[in-house]
This record gives sequence, structure tokens and C-alpha cells, in this order.
Amino acid sequence: MSAIEKKIPYKIYLEESEMPKAWYNLRADMKNKPSPLLNAETKQPMTAEELGVVFCEELVKQELDDVNAYYPIPQEILDFYRMYRPAPLVRAYCLEEKLQTPAKIYYKFEGNNTSGSHKLNSAIAQAYYAKNQGLTGVTTETGAGQWGTALSMACAYLGLDCKVYMVKVSYEQKPHRREVMRTYGASVTPSPSTETEVGRKILEAHPGTGGSLGCAISEAVEKATSMEGYRYVLGSVLNQVMLHQSIIGLETKAAMDKYGIKPDIIIGCAGGGSNLGGLIAPFMGEKIRGEADYRIIAVEPASCPSFTRGKYAYDYCDTGMVCPLAKMYTLGSNFIPAPTHAGGLRYHGMNPTLSQLYADGLMEATTVAQTEVFAAAEQFARVEGILPAPESSHAIKVAIDEAMKCKETGEEKTILFGLTGTGYFDMMSYEKFHNGVMTDYVPSDEEIAKGLAGLPAVEL
Amino acid sequence: MSAIEKKIPYKIYLEESEMPKAWYNLRADMKNKPSPLLNAETKQPMTAEELGVVFCEELVKQELDDVNAYYPIPQEILDFYRMYRPAPLVRAYCLEEKLQTPAKIYYKFEGNNTSGSHKLNSAIAQAYYAKNQGLTGVTTETGAGQWGTALSMACAYLGLDCKVYMVKVSYEQKPHRREVMRTYGASVTPSPSTETEVGRKILEAHPGTGGSLGCAISEAVEKATSMEGYRYVLGSVLNQVMLHQSIIGLETKAAMDKYGIKPDIIIGCAGGGSNLGGLIAPFMGEKIRGEADYRIIAVEPASCPSFTRGKYAYDYCDTGMVCPLAKMYTLGSNFIPAPTHAGGLRYHGMNPTLSQLYADGLMEATTVAQTEVFAAAEQFARVEGILPAPESSHAIKVAIDEAMKCKETGEEKTILFGLTGTGYFDMMSYEKFHNGVMTDYVPSDEEIAKGLAGLPAVEL
Repeated sequence: MSAIEKKIPYKIYLEESEMPKAWYNLRADMKNKPSPLLNAETKQPMTAEELGVVFCEELVKQELDDVNAYYPIPQEILDFYRMYRPAPLVRAYCLEEKLQTPAKIYYKFEGNNTSGSHKLNSAIAQAYYAKNQGLTGVTTETGAGQWGTALSMACAYLGLDCKVYMVKVSYEQKPHRREVMRTYGASVTPSPSTETEVGRKILEAHPGTGGSLGCAISEAVEKATSMEGYRYVLGSVLNQVMLHQSIIGLETKAAMDKYGIKPDIIIGCAGGGSNLGGLIAPFMGEKIRGEADYRIIAVEPASCPSFTRGKYAYDYCDTGMVCPLAKMYTLGSNFIPAPTHAGGLRYHGMNPTLSQLYADGLMEATTVAQTEVFAAAEQFARVEGILPAPESSHAIKVAIDEAMKCKETGEEKTILFGLTGTGYFDMMSYEKFHNGVMTDYVPSDEEIAKGLAGLPAVEL
Repeated sequence: MSAIEKKIPYKIYLEESEMPKAWYNLRADMKNKPSPLLNAETKQPMTAEELGVVFCEELVKQELDDVNAYYPIPQEILDFYRMYRPAPLVRAYCLEEKLQTPAKIYYKFEGNNTSGSHKLNSAIAQAYYAKNQGLTGVTTETGAGQWGTALSMACAYLGLDCKVYMVKVSYEQKPHRREVMRTYGASVTPSPSTETEVGRKILEAHPGTGGSLGCAISEAVEKATSMEGYRYVLGSVLNQVMLHQSIIGLETKAAMDKYGIKPDIIIGCAGGGSNLGGLIAPFMGEKIRGEADYRIIAVEPASCPSFTRGKYAYDYCDTGMVCPLAKMYTLGSNFIPAPTHAGGLRYHGMNPTLSQLYADGLMEATTVAQTEVFAAAEQFARVEGILPAPESSHAIKVAIDEAMKCKETGEEKTILFGLTGTGYFDMMSYEKFHNGVMTDYVPSDEEIAKGLAGLPAVEL
């Protein structure tokens, strides 16, 4: 196989001048809009004023806007993007050859930056608006650590203070992630902590707990709202995040259009939905407008199956119930994946926009077990070079499955998936996999039912 | 500051079609050639036949060749290069602004691949020639782990067996690096081990030793020469490695030429010399041929100062003295940097070609202390985004120093440095730095003299 004869290069890089200059707000094109966030007490739609206590003004505007299709990207954010973007769209020639499939496989690689993932795309945007509003700093939570790292980098760049609540079990298992954040000047606190009221309550109720994302969110929100000049920022789930992450899909589409490529299948891993939502945005827009058709697949861990086994209902975004209610596919705000679950994608809910699209039948969802995910990750690493994040590897697994189906049928389908990041800080999980001690876990129907029993009663 | 108005982009990416198609052999242009490798017993120049016991045939040819200036890069290697090359040449706009310097700073970033460094450039070449010769596998040593990772990746891609002897102290401190290598199918043994005669001898003489690069080399060489179908490969020091690494400099020069940029100062960190030699190769060629002048600076750790405090003499390449003798700047094959030394650049000697160039006054060398190196690394990370490897940060430190001199004098010098890799697996060292427990170490004159006293007697 020789790449020189190939028309399509291994890596399609847009020129910096070809980078999208505006984010795309998919909600503007949706016929059924995602349901509004509700005030947890009044059960009434959250107003901009109410949201402004927690979030930055401009981000509140973006969160509530389902009308305007494009948001020009501020120049300062474009400048930052240029430090690591455009991200390459890679033709997986080596994987195709290894699989001996007639399918054409492409992946958008978002890991070529120090945060190691796509999270940086929204981190710089959120930090920018915070800075622009004259704030002193921001607070956030992080689980696997990508988001906290991304936000630390963005804050260091802009000179903002950054307080990260890191899920305790991750804090202990991933001291290196913590040090990366410290390198960028962030303060990192294991959650639950005694720094907040909600943290102290959770510690009292569950002494020795390893924490959860939902709990860390509660702490970060409490901290932000109790300090002058601070706001809370979130790396996934929210519609504003999906807006910023649309840069992934826009670049991908621009690169594909340049070479006349049209994907048949688009695959993304789904935790809170930030990567999937960003990758599919412009393609889904075309699909909704009837301009093109794509098969779109969300891949979630069998151990945290929000789309596939959750309920489409209003739920709390956090364990401490300090956040507004969102209508989404959820397993209940008290659902925590089994301790054997490695990597991210452990959020109990799902981005409201993606939830509505899924409810409307515009996309599919499937689950995969983690041992098969790590096997796919290793197979991919050995031929494509990149050592993928466990999260991204969920998409790899399904992409390989689809490519193998093509091999059986002889169809030359074009498969696109999102390679959200690298797994350099996940070697402990890789080690478990290598040593054969990684296990799979599928929650029982009873466990799922127990999580769903905690959903708040909302009548609209 | 807006990048859009700037003529030179943040990142200059060559097209894949513009990638160099041949490596450049700087020795062909040198007036004083590097001295030949000697048989340690006979003290006569090593023949191709003798070297062929240890190294692959084609690599022996490259090692001994100081006549041919260009080696066409085989297509399979070019295909592999395309997975992560061309590497970006980055204009450090953000660092310049932070420093408020009139200097123009560029860095060639070689860390955008899973091995995390430039080592992959030579790993794939060496693995390719081994495969081409019909070998079953290769053996090698690794210290900080970049080279072992790179070779593992190359071997996985080509389906070669890969046995890595990892300096024991690194093996224990960097379990994650080990797991990356295992992901790529390599076997990793802590050195000294009981697997080899030389390992057993060293263990007997120094029970509980943490090992050294020189010792791991001895084990890997013994293993290779005692097994059918195996050869030894080395990630630095050798002239063949510098040949492969010339891709760094060739790409850099092509990118600079494209935009009419000419560096005044070229800076690279120097351990065994692979990165520095690769980066400067085409520039040094011009300098030797009298076509251009550049100030070229090698930066080494104060704790392992081969150029600046070593002796230009024949020495063993390894502790076990199983390798040929090389004439190089050396601290003696028994010299081991103090245990407080973090990261790589811990080899006692230096590439023979670079050694000759330095002896001829064609380049400078300087040392830096590790705490100032980590301070520079952190400063760089916060503005340029990339979290640099400790090794690369030696070059960053001196680049910043030179840029600050420009600030004083008002000179608009163009500074180029090699950013060889990322520091994701060095967070333990970063942690020490953050916690203020990192110390500097400068060997005393007595220590240096003790290392040099072990040099073999060679009369030519």
C-alpha cells in the first residue's frame, strides 16, 4: 500500500484560514426543540437571570438560544484554537488494510493537544466569556480529568483563577492528571470535600465514598455561587457546550467536502454528549433539513447506558440537586457506574439536544462492554499508532464492527468516527486489561429501576 | 494580537507531498569526519562484518558511510511517517508576547505522536531494515521510555518481536510507560536483570542498583547476539540515528524556506544527540559548505555534562563494555547522573558526529540546572499550551534566555529550537517541582575525574 498514489492523504488538515469562523447551533434547525431547563423548586423554565447566578451571561444566552443558527467565534478564541486546530481528519488506511474491509474509515482526531481531548474547544470558550465578564475565576468538576485539564489550560492562557473539584477516586488513581492541572496553575480538590456544605453532607451520609461526577458538580456550583467574581462552568451535557463543540463537526465536514467525501455512518461515544453532539451537528442539520441522510450512532458503555436503558424525563443534573432540572435520557441523578468501570462516559444523564434527537428517531444508540472496548483500542493503536482514550475507543469498537459488516456484504461504506482523545493517563486501566483482570459490568434491571425511582415529579 | 493578520501562521504544516523523500547524511559534507568505531579488543576500526553481528546490515552500511549525502527513504517508512508527519513548525507567538521580546521564536514540535517524541523517526527506520532482513525481532534499552515506546510502536506496525530492557529505576517509577509498550506488544524487562550474563554480573557487583542506560544497553546487546534472528537497535548516539533524525531538520528547513525565514540561533537539547543532530543537520551542512551561518547551541543538563565537562576520547558505549569503542565527548562509561536527575539526557557520551563538530568549533554547548528547566517548562506550557518533556525543556530554557537577551538589546533575532516531545509521563517530576522538593545537582570535579579515569587506553 502506498500513500503517494492515493488521492486522499492520510491526514486531511484544513489551512488555518479555512477554519470555521462561527459555531453552529443545531437547535435552530430542529423541529422539536429540546425542552427548557427548569427551576428545581418552582418547576418553571429557568430565566436568564436565574441562570446568571451560576453561569456567565453570554453562556446563558447561548444556553437558552434555540433560534440563531450561527455564533461568530470571537477572535481571541480563534487565536487559541490555532494553537492546536484545525484538528486532522485521518483516513484510517492502516486499519482498513488490517481489517481487509472495503469500507473507508475516517476519524476526526481531537487528541493533539495537552488536555488530550476535544474538551479544550469549549473550555477556552467558557473561560473567555468569564474573563470578558470581568470575573476573577471559575469552578468546575472533573472525573477522568480531561475537562479539568482543558479548563486549567484555558484559564492559564487567559490569566483566570481555576478551581477544580476532582472525583476523589480519580484524584487518587490519577495523580498525574492532577499534576498537569497544577502545572497550569489550577487548584485541585478531591470531591467530596469539606470545603462545601454539600460536600460535608455527602461525606457524612457516605463516609469513605469515592465521589461521583454529580457530587463534584454540586460542590463546584456551591463554591461558584458563594464567592464573589466566580461562576461555574461545565464540560459536557449543556447545550452551550454542544454549540462550542460544533467546531469538530464543522471542520470535519469542511475537510470531507474538500475531497468530495460523504459519510454513510457517523459514530461517536456518548457520556454527557459533548463530543457526539459536536461531531454530528452539521450533518444532523442537513439530515433535519432533508438535504442528506446519515446513519448516526451514539455509543455508550454497557455500565452507564443513559440512552439505551434510561428514561427520557426531567432530572437533576447533579447529586446535590443544586442545579436546574433538565429533560434528558437519564438513569437518575443517584446512579453511579460500578467501580469496575474505567474511564469517563460515567454521567447519569445526556445532553438535552441529543436526547430530543434520539427521542425523535434521528439517531441510534448502542452499548459496548469495556473489555471489548479495550481490545479494539489496542488493535487500533497497533496499526494507527495513536493510543486512544478509553472513551474514544467505544466509537472505535463500533466503527470496526461496522467495517467488518461491510467486509461480509462487500459494501464500500464510508464510516466516520470521533477519536476524542488519547489514553496516556489511562494506562492503569490498560494495565488491568493487559493483565486480564478487567471485568465487564451490566447493571441489573433492578439497579436501573432503583436509579429511575429517584426522578423528580414534573408536570408540565 | 490577532493571528489572522499575520502572514506566518501559528503552525506551519508542510503538505504530505512536500515531505522530504531522502534523509541527509551530514558526514558527507564534513571536512573532518567523525572517528571510526573501534573493536574494543583489537582497537582496530570495526568492519561491517563485525558490526553485522550486532546491527542490521543496512544500518551498518549507514553507520559506516561518510560519503553519500542522501539516502532515499523507503516507501514503507514514508507511509508510516505520514501517520504523524509532517510535524508542525510552530511560531511561538504567545510566548513572544508573554516575554515581550522582539525575537521571533519557532519550535519544531515532534511530540504529536503516541511515543511522545522524535524517537519514532528512527524507530520505524531501524525496525523496517530489521524486517527487511528477515529478522524475527529486535532488542533495545530504554531509560525515560520514549525510545522503547517508539520502537514498540514501529515493531507492532511491522509485526516484529520487540524486547525492551528498561532501566530499573524508570521501570519502577514509570509503570505507565511500561504499559504503553505492552499495549504495542513489546516485552519489557527491568534492567539489570537475571536474563543476561552481564545483568547477573552487575547485580552481583551492585545489589539493589537502579540500573543505568549503559547497563541496559549491555543486556540488550547480549540478548540480541545470543538469539537467532535478532539484532540490537539503539535510539540515539549512533550516526545512523542522526541520519534518520535528519527528517526533523529537513522538514524544518523546508517549512522555513517556504516562508523565507532564516534562523539566527538553533537550539537543541543534547543527551545522546539524536534530536540535536537531526534538527541541525541541513543547517550545519550549509554552514560547513559556507552557504550560511548559524549559531548552534547544544543544551545539556548540568548533572550530565558530556560536551561541557567531558573529554573527547574513545570510550565504551555501554557499562558492560560489550559494544565497540566510539570517539566522543564522554564522562566515562561508568558515569551515572545523580539520582535526583529527572528525565532523560542521562547518557555518559555523545554522538560521534556531533562530537567532531563541537571539537571543530562549529557549535556551542551550555548547561542548565533542572529546577530552572522545569520553571521554563511550566512558563512555556501556560502560554503555548503544550506540556513539554523535561528533555525538550532544556532547549526551551535557553531559547527563553536568548529571547530575553534580544529584549535587552532590541535585536529581532530568529530563534529556532527543537521541542522533542511531551511530558505526560513525567508528571512525577513535575510534582516534585510543584512541591518545591526538586533539587539541582552539579557533579564535583572529583566525580568527573573519577568517571574519566575509566576511559580505555587507545593509541591511533
